[in-house]
Amino acid sequence: MISEATRPRIAFQGERGAFSEEAVAQLLGEDVELVPCRTFEMLFTAISRGEADQALAPIENSLAGSVHRTYDLLLEHSLYINAEVVIPITHNLIGCADSSLDGVTAVESHPVALAQCESFFAAYPKIKRIATDDTAASVRHVVETCDPTRAAIGSRRAAQLYGGLILREHLEDHSENYTRFVLLTTMEETAATADKLSLVLRLAHQPGALARALDPFARRNIDLLKIESRPIRGEPWQYHFYLDLHASTHDERVTSALCELERQTTDVRLLGCYPAARRSVIETHHK
Amino acid sequence: MISEATRPRIAFQGERGAFSEEAVAQLLGEDVELVPCRTFEMLFTAISRGEADQALAPIENSLAGSVHRTYDLLLEHSLYINAEVVIPITHNLIGCADSSLDGVTAVESHPVALAQCESFFAAYPKIKRIATDDTAASVRHVVETCDPTRAAIGSRRAAQLYGGLILREHLEDHSENYTRFVLLTTMEETAATADKLSLVLRLAHQPGALARALDPFARRNIDLLKIESRPIRGEPWQYHFYLDLHASTHDERVTSALCELERQTTDVRLLGCYPAARRSVIETHHK
Repeated sequence: MISEATRPRIAFQGERGAFSEEAVAQLLGEDVELVPCRTFEMLFTAISRGEADQALAPIENSLAGSVHRTYDLLLEHSLYINAEVVIPITHNLIGCADSSLDGVTAVESHPVALAQCESFFAAYPKIKRIATDDTAASVRHVVETCDPTRAAIGSRRAAQLYGGLILREHLEDHSENYTRFVLLTTMEETAATADKLSLVLRLAHQPGALARALDPFARRNIDLLKIESRPIRGEPWQYHFYLDLHASTHDERVTSALCELERQTTDVRLLGCYPAARRSVIETHHK
Repeated sequence: MISEATRPRIAFQGERGAFSEEAVAQLLGEDVELVPCRTFEMLFTAISRGEADQALAPIENSLAGSVHRTYDLLLEHSLYINAEVVIPITHNLIGCADSSLDGVTAVESHPVALAQCESFFAAYPKIKRIATDDTAASVRHVVETCDPTRAAIGSRRAAQLYGGLILREHLEDHSENYTRFVLLTTMEETAATADKLSLVLRLAHQPGALARALDPFARRNIDLLKIESRPIRGEPWQYHFYLDLHASTHDERVTSALCELERQTTDVRLLGCYPAARRSVIETHHK
């Protein structure tokens, strides 16, 4: 057995059993010390507060889109992305030990989870929905109160952790429901296998500025995987642009494209260069 | 007095007194028939259901960013943007007639409004926050229950409409807090004064695709005002791009840039060409 001291401490947002915890397990295995953080702010300060070595933040869901809070906090903190992971979001209806689907009259979960299970609620119109702050906390609450009329929507991991009974699997309306997370550290290191690069930049507001900023990559055949714009606080209708590129700083084409970009704008920050997530399937993901 | 039949019926999301209603008033004046819609879905179907002539949808806040729901619904419905308006978001603490700030122990409002008044809650740490669905509904509720320990955060318009007492003005943390709304109709018409163009497009996933799509505008010195990407449902990590350009279809440079874009991708849809909002100040907006 490895001693506590050598296990990396990984911060994630939510309670034990959250989807973020599943993402930690998929990326780093089970031999880590889990550091649950109540808020995104606490997640982003967990390393500087000495509570964690690395932090895993959700950055994008394939249905809901970008997680704005993570994008904004990336800018406020000096952390680097050194890995990413994608997990399928599968929703389970979880009750306490003696419950059955027929007896359930109310289901609680995070509003986003409830909204992703519309077809279930349409099939059971008498079941009331109760919005809560956290999927995993809802599972814990349902198991603890032991009321067979109540169930929660959450992860399989939460059901196992809190001793809940899975009453139905795959409540999600859309099977192509994935969340991507980024692993944040204080050290800028680029793995030899890195093939994805994230940066944030600010452009002068003039015609063609964004086209010019993308051109150094386009001309070198470097693929833009994602662009996200976020408002600059205090400067209405001005934006930071976040780019994800299929690129590595080990590649000379990429470093010269970055140089060219930096000659255009002084406001470029590399957020990280890391191996893109391979979509490994940890559980069969079919309805 | 103008008869009901000739007044345009304008749908907006929220209850009477919502910020959206303020936006309707600023854009179209008071001589309209207001059609409150409970949900964004109802807002976008109000015209086809014969309940409204036009619909006003919030599309962007200068602090929180894009309103994803509006972007996604623009794609699902065949409506055109024919105007936009920007209003300042100023938060007021509103109690019932006999209340005073000293007696307030709980404040209710929409979570976004509560989150934009952090400095107020920091100054009054004993006041409890209660999240609700709607700012205006919170004001109505507080006035109706007539409990002097309860207050709501909402618009001046809501206070006037429901007979609430403004206990404090400008609770918002950031004064540069504006929301932009778009007016939607079924008819594609372009005013002679139109100077802003919105379109949505889908690109082949290949290196340089976005740079190439922006190039026809950049080369012609046409300013890109905003770019927004939204995930395509069922196709993880593929996106629709929404562009706002400083451009009019009355301008030949613009029509030839659009032709050039359409030769690259068949998946371009014009969302509207309309006069950009001038930031008219309806109330002094200083703390």
